[in-house]
Amino acid sequence: MQLDIIAKLINRFQKLPSVGYKTAQRYAYAIVDMDEFAVADFANTMIDAKATVRYCSVCGNFSDKETCNICVKRKSDTIVVVAYPKDVLALEKAGGNHSYHVLHGTLSPLDGRGANDIRIKELLPRVASALEIIIATNPDVEGEATAMYIAKLLKPLGTRVTRLAQGISIGSDIEYADEVTLARAIEARIEL
Amino acid sequence: MQLDIIAKLINRFQKLPSVGYKTAQRYAYAIVDMDEFAVADFANTMIDAKATVRYCSVCGNFSDKETCNICVKRKSDTIVVVAYPKDVLALEKAGGNHSYHVLHGTLSPLDGRGANDIRIKELLPRVASALEIIIATNPDVEGEATAMYIAKLLKPLGTRVTRLAQGISIGSDIEYADEVTLARAIEARIEL
Repeated sequence: MQLDIIAKLINRFQKLPSVGYKTAQRYAYAIVDMDEFAVADFANTMIDAKATVRYCSVCGNFSDKETCNICVKRKSDTIVVVAYPKDVLALEKAGGNHSYHVLHGTLSPLDGRGANDIRIKELLPRVASALEIIIATNPDVEGEATAMYIAKLLKPLGTRVTRLAQGISIGSDIEYADEVTLARAIEARIEL
Repeated sequence: MQLDIIAKLINRFQKLPSVGYKTAQRYAYAIVDMDEFAVADFANTMIDAKATVRYCSVCGNFSDKETCNICVKRKSDTIVVVAYPKDVLALEKAGGNHSYHVLHGTLSPLDGRGANDIRIKELLPRVASALEIIIATNPDVEGEATAMYIAKLLKPLGTRVTRLAQGISIGSDIEYADEVTLARAIEARIEL
């Protein structure tokens, strides 16, 4: 009973991450209810973004130029390796003067994502000129596996390879911290 | 630190219902990661849908013609009044041979939505030729208020006005039903 063109639009919205049929339908209806100008503007912004944004040739982060602003401004003594561009944004808020390397994914044998499907080989030529590689993938199974893989790969090159500290978050409650986090926090305790 | 064009795309995605910044960012990144052809197709589908879909001149449901398929095929002895086009889809699955009237909203004084902001006056000329008006707005505060308002408005016209039955849902568990639903179900009990 759905109109063909609405069914098609729902299908397109379902291509966005974690959008199911019901959500896509809500979005499609919202588009039909917007005014014509807003829809054209939305569609053009989409096409513009796709045409403008590419990956920085050095770090792989989103950029509108050949080399991104961060890579142009900073020398890469310390390279922070992250899985996705959004992680760069989060780490930039924390400050620091490091460069980045965006993998665009994590290793996930179950999903058929191996070392050649993420930007690991692009990291290797950058390691020689760096003093330290900080691996900042998520502390979950895939993130840990990716970190271990990269660490093993870089060890022979002699560069220092580190990983973000794991422990209790600032402002959190020890009562509600999970046991794995607490165990790691105890293991990695520091002298006062 | 977000690229301007990505920030703009995030802003556009935030215009979709219940999409916050983080979700919009995820969608925007997904667009950038899609291939060019898919993005153009997505954008064109959006513009197409907006250009093709209009409101049926009779019932107000989405249609690609002046009068929608349901209104063309069925005579309107019984008109089911719903708040949104998606409700028509749900009711169609339940079967029946009634026509519809889509209000495109509910009365909500708090949001400044009064009787003139939804399609109530378009319902009035249809009532004369109908035997029964079934009001099928949601059983929540706004839906109930809208139902009451329409019922009061139509009473003097002499047409039978009914409301969807409220009670326990098929397959549900009495243990977990809320007390208001149970109270309604007891009140509206039927003879066996």
